[in-house]
Amino acid sequence: MIDLRSDTVTRPTPEMLQAMISVPVGDDVFGEDPTVNAFEEKVAALFGQEAGLFVPSGVMSNQICLYELTRPGDEVILDDKAHIFNYEASSAAWLSSVQLNPLKGKNGLLDTDAVEAAIRTKNDWDPHTRVIAVENTTNKGGGAVYPLETLKQLRDIADKHGVYFHLDGARIWNALAEGDYSPKEIGSLFDTISVCFSKGLGAPVGSMILSTKARIRSARRTRKMLGGGMRQIGLLAAAADYALENHFGLLKTDNARARELARIIHQKGRFQVDPTQVFTNILLFDTPGPAEETLSELKAQGILMSAFGPKTIRAVFHFQISSEDYRNVCAFFE
Amino acid sequence: MIDLRSDTVTRPTPEMLQAMISVPVGDDVFGEDPTVNAFEEKVAALFGQEAGLFVPSGVMSNQICLYELTRPGDEVILDDKAHIFNYEASSAAWLSSVQLNPLKGKNGLLDTDAVEAAIRTKNDWDPHTRVIAVENTTNKGGGAVYPLETLKQLRDIADKHGVYFHLDGARIWNALAEGDYSPKEIGSLFDTISVCFSKGLGAPVGSMILSTKARIRSARRTRKMLGGGMRQIGLLAAAADYALENHFGLLKTDNARARELARIIHQKGRFQVDPTQVFTNILLFDTPGPAEETLSELKAQGILMSAFGPKTIRAVFHFQISSEDYRNVCAFFE
Amino acid sequence: MIDLRSDTVTRPTPEMLQAMISVPVGDDVFGEDPTVNAFEEKVAALFGQEAGLFVPSGVMSNQICLYELTRPGDEVILDDKAHIFNYEASSAAWLSSVQLNPLKGKNGLLDTDAVEAAIRTKNDWDPHTRVIAVENTTNKGGGAVYPLETLKQLRDIADKHGVYFHLDGARIWNALAEGDYSPKEIGSLFDTISVCFSKGLGAPVGSMILSTKARIRSARRTRKMLGGGMRQIGLLAAAADYALENHFGLLKTDNARARELARIIHQKGRFQVDPTQVFTNILLFDTPGPAEETLSELKAQGILMSAFGPKTIRAVFHFQISSEDYRNVCAFFE
Amino acid sequence: MIDLRSDTVTRPTPEMLQAMISVPVGDDVFGEDPTVNAFEEKVAALFGQEAGLFVPSGVMSNQICLYELTRPGDEVILDDKAHIFNYEASSAAWLSSVQLNPLKGKNGLLDTDAVEAAIRTKNDWDPHTRVIAVENTTNKGGGAVYPLETLKQLRDIADKHGVYFHLDGARIWNALAEGDYSPKEIGSLFDTISVCFSKGLGAPVGSMILSTKARIRSARRTRKMLGGGMRQIGLLAAAADYALENHFGLLKTDNARARELARIIHQKGRFQVDPTQVFTNILLFDTPGPAEETLSELKAQGILMSAFGPKTIRAVFHFQISSEDYRNVCAFFE
Repeated sequence: MIDLRSDTVTRPTPEMLQAMISVPVGDDVFGEDPTVNAFEEKVAALFGQEAGLFVPSGVMSNQICLYELTRPGDEVILDDKAHIFNYEASSAAWLSSVQLNPLKGKNGLLDTDAVEAAIRTKNDWDPHTRVIAVENTTNKGGGAVYPLETLKQLRDIADKHGVYFHLDGARIWNALAEGDYSPKEIGSLFDTISVCFSKGLGAPVGSMILSTKARIRSARRTRKMLGGGMRQIGLLAAAADYALENHFGLLKTDNARARELARIIHQKGRFQVDPTQVFTNILLFDTPGPAEETLSELKAQGILMSAFGPKTIRAVFHFQISSEDYRNVCAFFE
Repeated sequence: MIDLRSDTVTRPTPEMLQAMISVPVGDDVFGEDPTVNAFEEKVAALFGQEAGLFVPSGVMSNQICLYELTRPGDEVILDDKAHIFNYEASSAAWLSSVQLNPLKGKNGLLDTDAVEAAIRTKNDWDPHTRVIAVENTTNKGGGAVYPLETLKQLRDIADKHGVYFHLDGARIWNALAEGDYSPKEIGSLFDTISVCFSKGLGAPVGSMILSTKARIRSARRTRKMLGGGMRQIGLLAAAADYALENHFGLLKTDNARARELARIIHQKGRFQVDPTQVFTNILLFDTPGPAEETLSELKAQGILMSAFGPKTIRAVFHFQISSEDYRNVCAFFE
Repeated sequence: MIDLRSDTVTRPTPEMLQAMISVPVGDDVFGEDPTVNAFEEKVAALFGQEAGLFVPSGVMSNQICLYELTRPGDEVILDDKAHIFNYEASSAAWLSSVQLNPLKGKNGLLDTDAVEAAIRTKNDWDPHTRVIAVENTTNKGGGAVYPLETLKQLRDIADKHGVYFHLDGARIWNALAEGDYSPKEIGSLFDTISVCFSKGLGAPVGSMILSTKARIRSARRTRKMLGGGMRQIGLLAAAADYALENHFGLLKTDNARARELARIIHQKGRFQVDPTQVFTNILLFDTPGPAEETLSELKAQGILMSAFGPKTIRAVFHFQISSEDYRNVCAFFE
Repeated sequence: MIDLRSDTVTRPTPEMLQAMISVPVGDDVFGEDPTVNAFEEKVAALFGQEAGLFVPSGVMSNQICLYELTRPGDEVILDDKAHIFNYEASSAAWLSSVQLNPLKGKNGLLDTDAVEAAIRTKNDWDPHTRVIAVENTTNKGGGAVYPLETLKQLRDIADKHGVYFHLDGARIWNALAEGDYSPKEIGSLFDTISVCFSKGLGAPVGSMILSTKARIRSARRTRKMLGGGMRQIGLLAAAADYALENHFGLLKTDNARARELARIIHQKGRFQVDPTQVFTNILLFDTPGPAEETLSELKAQGILMSAFGPKTIRAVFHFQISSEDYRNVCAFFE
């Protein structure tokens, strides 16, 4: 099967597996895994942050960030297409006791005016605005990318109102692959960052939190409280490091394929998509009838995609789609 | 001062105070206050519900209802002008660990199609839709009233998807004063109801939860856990009962005054208001400059209102505005 | 019936009711009830604390204090007979996400050595000791009173380890009635204090939190989040103030009666009690057979007490037990 | 260094690493990792439970079990030496909002009479007893093992009072190694079980929850909410499976060494230990002076142990202590 349901389905390559089993490891609960420690430092430096913390998943990464920034009674401003609002099972309410304030943006990108208007007064009865959270690239928003300028404006709004700024960078690699800004240029704008290695980069497990040393120290304890403290995870860090070194360069192709397929679909007219609204490796298109019917038709041709609405389908490109696979996918739509 | 900031500012009348101190009381934590018990039964019967529970505030009333209906991981659909979303200090996230999903309606009233579209699938990673919550009349929505037909449609949607239906009826009395439906007609549509006696009705303290016997039994314990278990509160129930018996009839006048003043303001043209969008005792109007300036001007004339936005003012009518007060308010705008 | 089940069953007297309805009130959610404001200042001054906050119950009072002092991951050291551990429905775990560490003391009083030994190290996996909480007088501990010296030692331990010190003073009045120390002498030792007016003092409703101005400001919001924000509660504050002014002086008699009855019971030998272990208005004694049988026998004589264990009964004296009532109670045991 | 600080420090062997990288994997968030699925079934069957769920850590395993069994207001009875009470950072209070009721047992083993006495009545104000949790073998209790008969009695008490029975089996393998009962014999007694592969068994990462199908289905979602949903974790399951198949047989030696060393220490008399109180692979002994001093002395000889109290040291044996290492350790004490 050609699996375009998500870039999370990528499996470790033989080379990655060899990298995994070739590193020294230790008990990371005691802070003694040299491979993890080095990798945390490396990724933090890449984004111009002080420190990093390896965690089991992107959900835990985002949720620990929110926990470190908030207290009960607070509110987080985000887009109504945000992963935190749609695919994290209401965890922010559970773990951080915070309310989410989802704004209607475009392709999952926040509008700066709307953000500023949504910041609340501080009466006893108001939710207190504490964090602005962006997702870059957006998942439900169809892989859209924040311009650097917008992120800087949001940082300014955050500073003006004394609130924090969080980046859900699960797919930040796909944005960086486009080359419009460097990790440091955007990394320095945020109070907390979550990045993920098990999506397009193809590591089997793992995300990382980036922030100040003090906040990472606190996040270590929070990770333990959540049951995210693991032992010899240098293995997993080695796989993630391998992915970063060897697969990041492949993301440009994933992005290009999604855009190209959008143009093909648009030309043929059976399904609806605006090619100018496909930005990175995620392609959303609309079906004339129920999405499930088209998904069955695709499956019959050996192609897996996923429903993203009653009449919307999502295809996510990743490096384990071979050229031949890709031609077969195109052929379906042509 | 003529205080139109809220109908919560109403003070007990001498007759109400006499009623308060003339009733038998007991320890309500032990379920032994006869005045409370009788009043709980009375209000429950009024709305066609099995049982009632007297609580210190409307916030506690709403929050206990949500707590009884949900568990962590759940989501509550409501209007983005809902009191629960705007004026309860993110409590639903704290106490019930639930996510709110605020939809953009009209005057704080939910649109039935939007509600149905917002109900989620039940994957492990989705918030699970558990409750549809309406506020009637709406506060931030400017006192709007749900038509009975809309409430029935929402009940049908709730049934179809196996979710609960909650009424924040803090100002249900102002809706009932309009005479379009009876308490029983709408009461029977809901799984949980919250009503309040300390707004337009004028009691000093108290709200009530209405639901099934089983849920009220559970809510009693939840109230204790929250620190809402009080002792000889027959006193407060007596005041609320007096308010219900004697002040409910006065609400029609409050509603009428708000609408009349809207027409006056509209005619004069200095401030903006659409009189067809004023429904009960709450009047929202827009100011040409900062709301705070107009509030100062009003205050200089002995009139208090409150800011509801940078250029929006709210005035709330209640029975302790005398005819003379009312004329003075009108005079300001004429 | 002669009701010795608790001092919470005391009902407002006619004089108290008159006091209630004779005071100016306002909307306390807006901070505008002059009677509440004055009473909060008065009680705070009495205990040498900066500020006070009137709340609906002793449970809410204790729970807000713990909430203000802790964060998830923390632990509270208390006696295993503490009200917070036994009669607050696990609320500290719910509202503050804190773990309780109940130590075995004597009559509900903490042993200073045991407290010091229980303070934890601060690894990522340890609960972090954050608060030492005492109850004075103890309820389940049989009304025992902390000596001033012990409280000072506990304050020193708290300071040495950088933890907070909380007083559950629901029945502090019964301790103060013994005259061994003044409110200020002990009040100044604590970071947060909870006192209650609806137990032996006989007010219908109400407790108060005492602490610094900053913490009380935060507690006001927490009270709102919990649904404890009420409107014209000057009424309740007036009753509490009346109780403090007029009933405090009566507590000495309650204390004396409990001790005298203990001696009577001890002499007669049918039930077991050590009169030297009866300290204030709470009398615990053991029954030869099931407590429920003795309770039935008492009830047949018009006397209500409550079970405090399979073979333990609690009687609580209060000012609404008349001399004749008291003689009848004594007669039962003689 | 000879590392006896914990059996968590064990590192993957070359053979285990080969096993890891030789299995088919898939996206476990979608339930599609065949290696994980097979391993979950295998371990569940081993303990006579319906289903299993692989999770990142023993903390997450215990905490999800408690979450599935309880709701806010509940209480869990456990030993005051329990891992859940001492080394899980107050997480039960955070994640499940439950209160722990730690009883003083012997070597971390609950006394059945004390458990029955601790079960609470069900008033609105009581914590409601919901779970009895045992740890077998005990960690802080010094590796003690529950007799089968005691577990059966606790199951009977649980049934009698309608409460659940949970096993923290992080080191159940060391108990099973003693051969007094089979996994099925004890597995069938519990509502939920947590077992760990990264302690004495030596896998790098991973624990498993065992319970009914329905509860495991719910636990899958809870794991997602906590951020414990990971992707291609067949790798980790393969390591754990290898550990179970190949290292379980080595635990008997670890147990024997701990007991033998206890006898040696006891004979020499410098440190205090009762050899009859050493049961499996954990050895606790007391130092005449500060534990830290002895730890330094050990370290100087290349031996690492850990402080378990101001004058108590813990040594944990595991299969990566070679015969020579072991002789060197013995030599230190001889």
